Amino acid sequence: MTEAKACHWFEYRVYWEDTDAGGVVYHARYLNFLERARSDYLLALGYPQVTLKARAGRLFVVTHASIDYIAPARLEDELAVSVRVEQLKQASMVFKQAIERRGSAATPLAHAQVTVACLDAQSFKPARLPPDLATTIQQHIG
Amino acid sequence: MTEAKACHWFEYRVYWEDTDAGGVVYHARYLNFLERARSDYLLALGYPQVTLKARAGRLFVVTHASIDYIAPARLEDELAVSVRVEQLKQASMVFKQAIERRGSAATPLAHAQVTVACLDAQSFKPARLPPDLATTIQQHIG
Amino acid sequence: MTEAKACHWFEYRVYWEDTDAGGVVYHARYLNFLERARSDYLLALGYPQVTLKARAGRLFVVTHASIDYIAPARLEDELAVSVRVEQLKQASMVFKQAIERRGSAATPLAHAQVTVACLDAQSFKPARLPPDLATTIQQHIG
Amino acid sequence: MTEAKACHWFEYRVYWEDTDAGGVVYHARYLNFLERARSDYLLALGYPQVTLKARAGRLFVVTHASIDYIAPARLEDELAVSVRVEQLKQASMVFKQAIERRGSAATPLAHAQVTVACLDAQSFKPARLPPDLATTIQQHIG
Repeated sequence: MTEAKACHWFEYRVYWEDTDAGGVVYHARYLNFLERARSDYLLALGYPQVTLKARAGRLFVVTHASIDYIAPARLEDELAVSVRVEQLKQASMVFKQAIERRGSAATPLAHAQVTVACLDAQSFKPARLPPDLATTIQQHIG
Repeated sequence: MTEAKACHWFEYRVYWEDTDAGGVVYHARYLNFLERARSDYLLALGYPQVTLKARAGRLFVVTHASIDYIAPARLEDELAVSVRVEQLKQASMVFKQAIERRGSAATPLAHAQVTVACLDAQSFKPARLPPDLATTIQQHIG
Repeated sequence: MTEAKACHWFEYRVYWEDTDAGGVVYHARYLNFLERARSDYLLALGYPQVTLKARAGRLFVVTHASIDYIAPARLEDELAVSVRVEQLKQASMVFKQAIERRGSAATPLAHAQVTVACLDAQSFKPARLPPDLATTIQQHIG
Repeated sequence: MTEAKACHWFEYRVYWEDTDAGGVVYHARYLNFLERARSDYLLALGYPQVTLKARAGRLFVVTHASIDYIAPARLEDELAVSVRVEQLKQASMVFKQAIERRGSAATPLAHAQVTVACLDAQSFKPARLPPDLATTIQQHIG
């Protein structure tokens, strides 16, 4: 069941650099926040990407992203960004993510689905996730 | 017919700022290049957004973006980014866009669909496109 | 005495978005981290800039920045960024800031001096800092 | 004489991504525009940095930047950015650069001085500029 799947939240503040002359967060920056959360999720699991590359020779790249913008984020907002692994395959993962204003779960700012492929860091060709990482994520998403 | 629809191309070079430690263009930056092309498309039609806001009181915001990453762009690549209005509604537009390496149409780097809503610049509520702009785009996409 | 001046530290992680194809943090991004720290300093003093603009009609802009790059920051580094008000004038402040790798004070990554002017949010002309903010900073740097 | 030194100008448009909620170009982005111009200058001389790294094993990094912000740039402005080599040493260069609004030389937006070091792309240690590049620049600044 979807509800059983572990969902992790990470928090980030909106700074001037994230905003544009429209007075709100520039739309492309939402992908940055989503990526920070996926990176922090891997770190929380004990898998820094620097180590994944150096030791396991693996790199993650985004192959698809789809995002619905629901409400604008603004300067100094505290964003909460979720990470949930929706699908775990041998050489890729599909994430479901949301961005909310902290403490305002009732009004999400954005929903997204992001597909990430695992590549060999040398050849840039698709490659299996390191087995221990795959196992950790599998246990995690139950 | 789709083939009949006008498709405009704009060119941008990849600089250090666009790349990441993976050696390729950071995935979120593709949305930046897509947005530059939409802005340059409006400029080419004679509609600077600064003027649209000041005179017509209109602002465009992205409400949905979906992007498929096909091949990586790299430092100093010359990107060609296309803009095609797929749907024109009273208060929104759907764009189909592609990113290619200039002169290498055979290998697209990315395909995207972006929905843009027209807002009243004061209230931030959905508002009709300025009639002359709508007419211009309509003639354009035939 | 300089030593007596309060120095505040704020921490930020380096993500993919901050790096470039050279494998290190893109040089312009250091200014972003410095600005985040100044914004967080104002927040820590109880002065969100959103409120400063809405209630006091004041905006801060950078008028000068000077930065020495000493050693590169890398992906997933935890940066510690300092903020120290070196000079407090009626309509401007001079900050001395440093960037270090957390827990590695012996090897600073960058030193910077940044001058920030206080502007009237309507006219964009130089304007006095709100008196209560000036007093708070003055007590702070005592 | 300084006047004799060749000064090159490159042009860039300001897009939404470059602006912040203050309605003007985010201060750190000026360094991006300055870097684009230095990269375009090397390209104009016939030295793409991708080739410099692959063939000559050289990489340039910024070791110092100093910038004075004189007037704000705004959305859709056409910026003209100058590049002038002020000093050419064995393993570094000092650039003097300016940012203007195209066609408005009377009102510069920013002045900057940027020092760039030449590094060995493997060891990241200071290394001589490739001799042919040094010669080309030398002839250039005459």
